[in-house]
Amino acid sequence: MAAERRVAALSRHLTSSSDVSLSAKVDLRDFAAEDVYLFLTRDNVELRAKMLDFLKDPMYRPNYYLSLMEFRDLTLRRLQKFVDQKFFSTFDYLNDPLRFMAGLETLASVDYSLCIKAGVHFTLCGGTIAKLGTEKHHKTFLPRLDTLELPGCFGMTELGHGSNVMGIETQATYDEETGEFVINTPTDTASKFWIGGAAQHGKVCTVFAQLTVRGKWEGPHVFVVRLRDDSGQPMPGVRIQDNGPKAGLNGVDNGQLWFYNVRVPRDALLDRYSSVAPDGTYSSPIPSVAQRFGTMVGGLTTGRMLIAQGAIDASKIGVAIALRYACARPQFNGKCIMEYLTHQRRLLPALATTYAMQLQSLRLKDLYMAKRPEDAKTIHVVSSGLKAGATWHRVEILQACRECCGGQGFLAANKIGPMKNDMDVDVTFEGDNTVMMQQVAKALLDTAAKKPPRPQMPSMEGASVTDLTLLAALLRFREDSLTAEVAAAIGRAAKVAAPGGKKAAVAAAADAYEDNLDTVLQLGWAHVDRITFEGFVEEVNTRAPREARPVLSLLATLYGLTRVERALAFYLASGAASGAAAAAVRAGVNGACAALSADGGWAALRLAEGFGIPDHCLEAPIAFDWRQIGSTVTM
Amino acid sequence: MAAERRVAALSRHLTSSSDVSLSAKVDLRDFAAEDVYLFLTRDNVELRAKMLDFLKDPMYRPNYYLSLMEFRDLTLRRLQKFVDQKFFSTFDYLNDPLRFMAGLETLASVDYSLCIKAGVHFTLCGGTIAKLGTEKHHKTFLPRLDTLELPGCFGMTELGHGSNVMGIETQATYDEETGEFVINTPTDTASKFWIGGAAQHGKVCTVFAQLTVRGKWEGPHVFVVRLRDDSGQPMPGVRIQDNGPKAGLNGVDNGQLWFYNVRVPRDALLDRYSSVAPDGTYSSPIPSVAQRFGTMVGGLTTGRMLIAQGAIDASKIGVAIALRYACARPQFNGKCIMEYLTHQRRLLPALATTYAMQLQSLRLKDLYMAKRPEDAKTIHVVSSGLKAGATWHRVEILQACRECCGGQGFLAANKIGPMKNDMDVDVTFEGDNTVMMQQVAKALLDTAAKKPPRPQMPSMEGASVTDLTLLAALLRFREDSLTAEVAAAIGRAAKVAAPGGKKAAVAAAADAYEDNLDTVLQLGWAHVDRITFEGFVEEVNTRAPREARPVLSLLATLYGLTRVERALAFYLASGAASGAAAAAVRAGVNGACAALSADGGWAALRLAEGFGIPDHCLEAPIAFDWRQIGSTVTM
Ligand SMILES: Cc1cc2nc3c(=O)[nH]c(=O)nc-3n(C[C@H](O)[C@H](O)[C@H](O)COP(=O)(O)OP(=O)(O)OC[C@H]3O[C@@H](n4cnc5c(N)ncnc54)[C@H](O)[C@@H]3O)c2cc1C
Ligand SMILES: Cc1cc2nc3c(=O)[nH]c(=O)nc-3n(C[C@H](O)[C@H](O)[C@H](O)COP(=O)(O)OP(=O)(O)OC[C@H]3O[C@@H](n4cnc5c(N)ncnc54)[C@H](O)[C@@H]3O)c2cc1C
Repeated sequence: MAAERRVAALSRHLTSSSDVSLSAKVDLRDFAAEDVYLFLTRDNVELRAKMLDFLKDPMYRPNYYLSLMEFRDLTLRRLQKFVDQKFFSTFDYLNDPLRFMAGLETLASVDYSLCIKAGVHFTLCGGTIAKLGTEKHHKTFLPRLDTLELPGCFGMTELGHGSNVMGIETQATYDEETGEFVINTPTDTASKFWIGGAAQHGKVCTVFAQLTVRGKWEGPHVFVVRLRDDSGQPMPGVRIQDNGPKAGLNGVDNGQLWFYNVRVPRDALLDRYSSVAPDGTYSSPIPSVAQRFGTMVGGLTTGRMLIAQGAIDASKIGVAIALRYACARPQFNGKCIMEYLTHQRRLLPALATTYAMQLQSLRLKDLYMAKRPEDAKTIHVVSSGLKAGATWHRVEILQACRECCGGQGFLAANKIGPMKNDMDVDVTFEGDNTVMMQQVAKALLDTAAKKPPRPQMPSMEGASVTDLTLLAALLRFREDSLTAEVAAAIGRAAKVAAPGGKKAAVAAAADAYEDNLDTVLQLGWAHVDRITFEGFVEEVNTRAPREARPVLSLLATLYGLTRVERALAFYLASGAASGAAAAAVRAGVNGACAALSADGGWAALRLAEGFGIPDHCLEAPIAFDWRQIGSTVTM
Repeated sequence: MAAERRVAALSRHLTSSSDVSLSAKVDLRDFAAEDVYLFLTRDNVELRAKMLDFLKDPMYRPNYYLSLMEFRDLTLRRLQKFVDQKFFSTFDYLNDPLRFMAGLETLASVDYSLCIKAGVHFTLCGGTIAKLGTEKHHKTFLPRLDTLELPGCFGMTELGHGSNVMGIETQATYDEETGEFVINTPTDTASKFWIGGAAQHGKVCTVFAQLTVRGKWEGPHVFVVRLRDDSGQPMPGVRIQDNGPKAGLNGVDNGQLWFYNVRVPRDALLDRYSSVAPDGTYSSPIPSVAQRFGTMVGGLTTGRMLIAQGAIDASKIGVAIALRYACARPQFNGKCIMEYLTHQRRLLPALATTYAMQLQSLRLKDLYMAKRPEDAKTIHVVSSGLKAGATWHRVEILQACRECCGGQGFLAANKIGPMKNDMDVDVTFEGDNTVMMQQVAKALLDTAAKKPPRPQMPSMEGASVTDLTLLAALLRFREDSLTAEVAAAIGRAAKVAAPGGKKAAVAAAADAYEDNLDTVLQLGWAHVDRITFEGFVEEVNTRAPREARPVLSLLATLYGLTRVERALAFYLASGAASGAAAAAVRAGVNGACAALSADGGWAALRLAEGFGIPDHCLEAPIAFDWRQIGSTVTM
């Protein structure tokens, strides 16, 4: 009823005859959730199914009654049992990255602590050894990581140094006499902080430290350092302090580390990009310290991709639960809460955004797997943007889902709340989002410094706001405009300061950048919005199952419209949109919401089914028969 | 440096000469935090200090290591010890509401579980008995609540019925034979759900049930029902099920209740607004069921005010911690993170908003204390709006604060994260926010149906965007425009349907309302924005300490500007703002941020000091010397 009314209202609002397209799309054909699943999940389908089946084991059911220490203990046991199945190997980090990622991704649908505990061990520790180490390291460590005989840690962050890794203070000095590196923590701010696994279980750690050889500083390098001996006792010179309880993710035992003259053999240096000869001769194919370090950490994209994927998968679970409850829960006059426009506007853009991010993640994996050296910068930009975008979207999506479930959204058994708590970390770790979005913007500004973009303002007059080409043009226009705006501000500042010399000009440019940091962040977002929308549309056009194309194209429309709506002030201020166009955008969003939630919301529910979340991962009682909560369903 | 640059940039951006006002304000005089504290905290100052002092007791220090059951147990013991001090009494609910509220508010600065456990007992149970009961109830129950001899519960919500309380299914039937009411839970959806204290400690409960007397339904009424006997055993016919773990607030033992032919004496009915004579004669001064119920629950504003105040106080703590860390934490090039515009834009509007909400809460208390019958509706609207506004702001503010602290924001010891988890409940309980905002909007639409507002579009041309009168006019314009827009849509629909009769017109009006529910929510927000801004300005002008006036007036400007900026699309679409005006708004926000964070952020820090949070409530290591974390400060 309400849906049909709004579809009708929509045709009144839209600005041209071509706008019937949306109402046409409302006539959504039936489509199979399995087809959509295969559209969204393209690799290791069988392996994933096998893992999910294994994770039915009662040991992996959520238990919210545990104390901190019990939960950590359970997480280790869960990981050991999982590892024993040998679904993948640390060697896959290099040999079969998709399999490697599929393995870790699957864990997130069960428990984020387990996923991160495994991620630190396999990706951050194992992956670093695989990528930055050479054969001797692989042979020595990877098989023992594979069995969890050596639980691994990743020691990059320090109490005083997070986002700015170049600024770490931990020292590694080569001692030619003994052929060893001596690792030291010179101050408390140099203590390694947040090191996953360090508090209790970790035995080996990839430690980032400033290398000094023959009195010369060579920048940050990575060393494999034993934290504990085989029996679990801390190694001599290693001081360990538990980070204690966190706001979530308490299955992971994060800890703080100090090194006091810890001696490690020359082979402890991961020497793929630089090496130290026994006599202390330092050599590296990359001469600049900054570039060398950039290459090292640049290779560690997998971690960032996993965090993005974890956020996307959590969004899937949240949206699926909230949609199922919304379509089954009446509150006033027997009307299901899904029928409220406010509810639709909270959940359906969340659904569309989750699809957009998932497809973007697939595209990034494709790019990554193609292994073309010329793509390195794009991979860095896209992975930074996706990481920040997907995790910030997740914050908003899970919050909306939790609120949409009313009180039930706060019940641990219904999963959204605990997931929200556990995952809150993802916006600041593996690259703080504010810093990540700047990485994206900086890349655009670098390009613009050479060749400034010429923003093309699309005309909305007489056009339909649901036209995918128009939406793409709008998103492109915003990105180009913001790029041009910030680039111009920087250029102007540099020019004004130029008479004072090159250094003054560079400083003025940096100041101008900082003065526009608010716009810089928006620019990062604008880029993410544009590429994810374009990707969504292209994926639907080229790879979507035929029956699902109308509904997926409607979903892409909704995604594009919500991104445009969010930035409406920009479009209005720039003159791209009139008041009427703004009204049409609103009507477009409302119309798409109506279409997706009509007839009991079957289309939205089916799309959520397309995520392919098995019942034992969906878990939440409200996703099944909420009327039974507490009577037959016990929490 | 950056601050001064931005202030300069601001003067370039602003559209008229009067805009120097902001740069003038930048010259902020010194002011005393204590004066500001007394501006923000006007009642029971000594009592609050005494309570806070008492709460230094180690028993009240946070402990994040506890299991669910241990935490519940500790919360009860904490409450008992607090109650033993007799800081206030349940009788104060009627006799000295400010003292009553001050008592409960103070608990929130220590632990939200403790605050809510006390709130359910004193406000929801005790307050209901005080307000809806008569002397016999007061005498019987209030003294035993005061000592916690009878831990009290509040039984309104049912598994199937939350926002729509009128729809509850629990039955109370009067039995003239025995002079008793018989309470029954006819279905599982009628089971009382979420009842705080019911799972373990509650002994008495104010139960909402549909009353039937002599076969006639009289609507929801409230009965005092014993859940457990003095020894703690469930009463005959009362079935209790633990709700289990939640996403936070785990010190409160929420539970589910079924009543099977539970017989309570005739006196169990809280009979202030209606009574049943021994022979079953029902009488009430309020004839209509809906109005009668409205009067009953309308009296329970205190709970809503407390939830709003709790959200405000949590925002204070979050903002204070994040600001102190931001001004002490360098990350790149020795630059404190507070110097980043992005950081300022995350924290300073949060600071301003927290002030705005706090002042609004004071104003609401004034209105409440004046006890003028003609204010009843205003109190309902303002309390609903403040509850929704303050709690939704809190979500955003605490999220921003947590993210601004990077990894440290996720450490439990730093308090923001656990507070965020615990308080997440506040957006849906004590009136779901989406429903509350509709209460606000409906009141405006009711008035508009009689006398539609005539929106006055203020002219921004040639005006300064930092002019407080202009900002007020802009916020008023938005509220009036949205009111007029929705009212017109409803009016049109009713008119079209009118030929079909009155019923059809009413139905069409209701449909039109639902079709515009997105705008209705914005209208609720627009009202909250407008009154909180006006209140802020008025408080500053009339009651602010003289030295602090410039800085507070700058803060009010920032608040108004951020609310206008958030709704910029509206102002642009309506023609009130041009692109240049939009740029001026941005520059105004950035300029105010610069002024507040200049010189090491002393003004912002001082304003946070004005919240008057004692060190033992601030708690977080990052609010003190973060460099010591883990070395001398142990978590
Ligand atoms: C649960 C958890 C597990 C972790 N596990 C590991 C691990 O196993 N190994 C490991 O090495 N690390 C780990 N980390 C550390 C994590 O990677 C860091 O927390 C992260 O890099 C951010 O650094 P920081 O916390 O020092 O924040 P900071 O870098 O100090 O940032 C603080 C704030 O300042 C802002 N800011 C900083 N720089 C800028 C800028 N240039 N412009 C604008 N704003 C800025 C940020 O946005 C943020 O809001 C973990 C962290 C957590 C919380
Ligand atoms: C920790 C906790 C403690 C509590 N303690 C108590 C207690 O002690 N005693 C007690 O009686 N209750 C208690 N409650 C219950 C609480 O008051 C309810 O959860 C609240 O009233 C919301 O009701 P609901 O959960 O049934 O959500 P619903 O009313 O079912 O709402 C679900 C969703 O639908 C949306 N929705 C509903 N109606 C509309 C509408 N008309 N328009 C648009 N959207 C709509 C809401 O916004 C929400 O997102 C507690 C709840 C919690 C979580």
